[in-house]
Amino acid sequence: MNGAEHLVTELADAGVEVCFANPGTSEMHFVAALDKISSIRCILCLAEGIVTGAADGYARMSGKPGVTLLHLGPGLGNGLSNLHNARKARSSILNIVGDHATYHLEYDAPLTADIEGVAKPVSHWIQRCESADNIATTALAALQQADTYPGHIATLILPADTAWTEVSPSGTGSTMQDALVITHDLYQKATIPASLEDRAAAAARALQSGSNSALLMTGSCLSERGLQAAGKIRKSTGASLLAQTANGRLARGAGRVSVTAVPYPVDDALSFLAPYDQIITACAKSPVAFFAYPGKPSSLIQESAVHTVLAGETDDGIAALEALADELGASDLVPDLQAAEQHPVEEGAPLNADTIGQVVARAIPDQAIVVDEAITMGRNFQKVTRGSRPHDWLQICGGAIGDGFPLATGAAIACPQRKVIALQADGSGMYSLQALWTQARENLDITTLVFSNRSYAILKHELKNVGATAGKTADDLMDLDRPALDWVALANGMGVEAVQVTNTSELEQQMQIGLDRSGPFLIELLI
Amino acid sequence: MNGAEHLVTELADAGVEVCFANPGTSEMHFVAALDKISSIRCILCLAEGIVTGAADGYARMSGKPGVTLLHLGPGLGNGLSNLHNARKARSSILNIVGDHATYHLEYDAPLTADIEGVAKPVSHWIQRCESADNIATTALAALQQADTYPGHIATLILPADTAWTEVSPSGTGSTMQDALVITHDLYQKATIPASLEDRAAAAARALQSGSNSALLMTGSCLSERGLQAAGKIRKSTGASLLAQTANGRLARGAGRVSVTAVPYPVDDALSFLAPYDQIITACAKSPVAFFAYPGKPSSLIQESAVHTVLAGETDDGIAALEALADELGASDLVPDLQAAEQHPVEEGAPLNADTIGQVVARAIPDQAIVVDEAITMGRNFQKVTRGSRPHDWLQICGGAIGDGFPLATGAAIACPQRKVIALQADGSGMYSLQALWTQARENLDITTLVFSNRSYAILKHELKNVGATAGKTADDLMDLDRPALDWVALANGMGVEAVQVTNTSELEQQMQIGLDRSGPFLIELLI
Repeated sequence: MNGAEHLVTELADAGVEVCFANPGTSEMHFVAALDKISSIRCILCLAEGIVTGAADGYARMSGKPGVTLLHLGPGLGNGLSNLHNARKARSSILNIVGDHATYHLEYDAPLTADIEGVAKPVSHWIQRCESADNIATTALAALQQADTYPGHIATLILPADTAWTEVSPSGTGSTMQDALVITHDLYQKATIPASLEDRAAAAARALQSGSNSALLMTGSCLSERGLQAAGKIRKSTGASLLAQTANGRLARGAGRVSVTAVPYPVDDALSFLAPYDQIITACAKSPVAFFAYPGKPSSLIQESAVHTVLAGETDDGIAALEALADELGASDLVPDLQAAEQHPVEEGAPLNADTIGQVVARAIPDQAIVVDEAITMGRNFQKVTRGSRPHDWLQICGGAIGDGFPLATGAAIACPQRKVIALQADGSGMYSLQALWTQARENLDITTLVFSNRSYAILKHELKNVGATAGKTADDLMDLDRPALDWVALANGMGVEAVQVTNTSELEQQMQIGLDRSGPFLIELLI
Repeated sequence: MNGAEHLVTELADAGVEVCFANPGTSEMHFVAALDKISSIRCILCLAEGIVTGAADGYARMSGKPGVTLLHLGPGLGNGLSNLHNARKARSSILNIVGDHATYHLEYDAPLTADIEGVAKPVSHWIQRCESADNIATTALAALQQADTYPGHIATLILPADTAWTEVSPSGTGSTMQDALVITHDLYQKATIPASLEDRAAAAARALQSGSNSALLMTGSCLSERGLQAAGKIRKSTGASLLAQTANGRLARGAGRVSVTAVPYPVDDALSFLAPYDQIITACAKSPVAFFAYPGKPSSLIQESAVHTVLAGETDDGIAALEALADELGASDLVPDLQAAEQHPVEEGAPLNADTIGQVVARAIPDQAIVVDEAITMGRNFQKVTRGSRPHDWLQICGGAIGDGFPLATGAAIACPQRKVIALQADGSGMYSLQALWTQARENLDITTLVFSNRSYAILKHELKNVGATAGKTADDLMDLDRPALDWVALANGMGVEAVQVTNTSELEQQMQIGLDRSGPFLIELLI
């Protein structure tokens, strides 16, 4: 057994089922080993941003680390921005990055690069395999690091010779093997906040003393169980339940405890948060502006508001919320649940954020996964869909656009029985359109709506927000209509069936067609 | 005048004419400043790998630094692999990377990242602007660093507030302004090798003592002037003139001094270099295998061969070659020049590496720029085109595939009067197909041939080379035919006209159509 075979065996034994891959020469032994250990499913992506974004989507929906296979420093580099997003979403990722054979590095061949340096800005943990004999131990350590609540990015560097060298009899054992099995249950590995009772008591006092209090959450707090506890807290204290502007995963829809996300535009966010004199955070940070804007504050809460931390960013949010509910004597209360809502759809109406939202809200099937990279078009979508059938809502958390198509891809791999609806801005979509090919190849059950406003619309707003004025050059840099992108052609070119729609009736009809099939379908909405 | 306006003014005054851009909110003041200083042309690219690859192509063909505008750490991250290629090609690049306002960084907003960390693996020089007043000085220092022979990657980090803050009267002056004007002539800034005469004498002795000598070159040595000197050396000594396997830019074709590149496949390279007992390098390194392969050496030259360094990697290659010619008393010799060759094209023949090469060789127009990311399909293209009309040949130097479309884009911007022919493998092309949109938008004169073998063909060879065996999983990871990519649809989706061809007659006809127009055209070759 060579190092690669040992590595793959150990990963499979530890519970790894899927590997998102864009391999090269230095990973060929790993790839050959995958053939022998057939329990790991390999998903080929045509660019590394797709690999890392899909691993993120998989991690969010499976509760397991998303595993990637990447080709040296440049391959990892291509995947960096979606690893940034994964990190900000607190997703679990294990990157396996092939490198030249150890003895080949000194020759500085063309692909030689500082892999550790590339990995550092996005990784919680980086280690290099030293020999075939220590591959398994190192890999399991990496997997364990990735599988650390609330989700870490672990990068394992795999020199080609450690993969192709035979493992000696003494190297095949692994001390960790028995202890480490990843499950679909990362939240079980959460750390109880230090001095949980004190924090719960402080948060309770804050909630009871405020004239207007908000409980701001993200991460595990936004799971069904976390939200149940939050709902009891609201029932007991009247506090508003808020979510961060962007969240890795949010359980929502009819019959669930509803929360409201802090708006993205800085002025809206400031007005939204202005009424609160007490902000209690659970896994979330005190809210900050996405960007700095001249003359506007970076912190979005009132200077006079009191901020109390119930749970830090890496603490067990569910335990903290349940402790707070206990402290308030609210554990037996029945939270108010979101009622089902059906928005009327105006037949044949032109497409805009409001009319699209109505169609989407009606169409969301039970237990759907909604991936939201709708950017400017999607600002009202959360509001209009709060009473839709129960679903999970996945967002781009690091602001590095180009995460939507890959997230949808990974989520569909993780949950083959659930429908995925991807809400995709056109400008952002162009960073990672290659994901459509993987969707076709794996016949993933994803209906994608591309909002074809043919501009970086968000930058038009932002230019104003930062107090700059646009002339022809600036306008040109924000317009994508010269030439117009044809998303039907682009999707077809990668084997995904696609249509164009121009009004609500067409959209409604085509969404139904997309959701009725089991495979990818793309709808280009001409705005 | 704010910092951004001062920066743009100074860059324009220093000779910057083009900026390849994918900006975001933090760069809006820079973008607004571009409107006021209209002499800098801004080229929008829809993903950052296109920005950096196009800047590389521009730098190689213009002799000036390619300037990029990128959005924070993730934007730079997306551009990393083509910066790696640019670095290995020794291209001049100035990256301007926007960041949050200085005071906003402590809030760790979603897009906050370690930009210096991301930049480090690919940059020779990194600096952060500290205030609006020091923007110009820092930017000119960065430009000067980029414009250092043989080409450096300089990364300038531009916090948003240094861009939007007004420059104080004392800050508008720049001490470097008068000294720094970049010209289309980076080779003039080369450093004469230390002890030039001694090196030339040693190289002359080596050439005269060897029974079979090779002069291995890259960089400036492969310019027309460098090759003239090399041709005299060959005439005098009978040495073989070799080029690296991949080179940033190579002047070639009928009437020029012809060189032969070291083959890529390791076994071919070993056989190719085996006869030489004396290897003299000029700007090139002693040749090494692209990857390590079990049981095969990393160094490609015979252990008994003597390696003499005429010029180091960053030395003035032209001066060194001319000094060597002098030393040999060969300065007045007339080098043997490549004769024009016309390969017959078999009408209606199926498309393969040989038949395609014949068509391409005939079609290359005078002074064309050929961008070669043909990978496996292109192994014989250099041989068959050596007697074509004079042209420049640009290659991917860092092995990070996905450089072809962007290089062609940047080269066409640099040389609007010259035809660009892009030879593009399909697998590699998928990493950066978004460049086609920029080609359409700017109506760039590029005829692209996509070799649709629907596989990562190179990996099939490499799997064998590393001694691994493929099963179904491995085969699957190298086949791109499920589903087949439709390059005509993909190109059309981005506004580029395209056709599919299946034999030599169709290819010849469509290449003529492409070359006769002045705008982008894509030909998908079904192999």
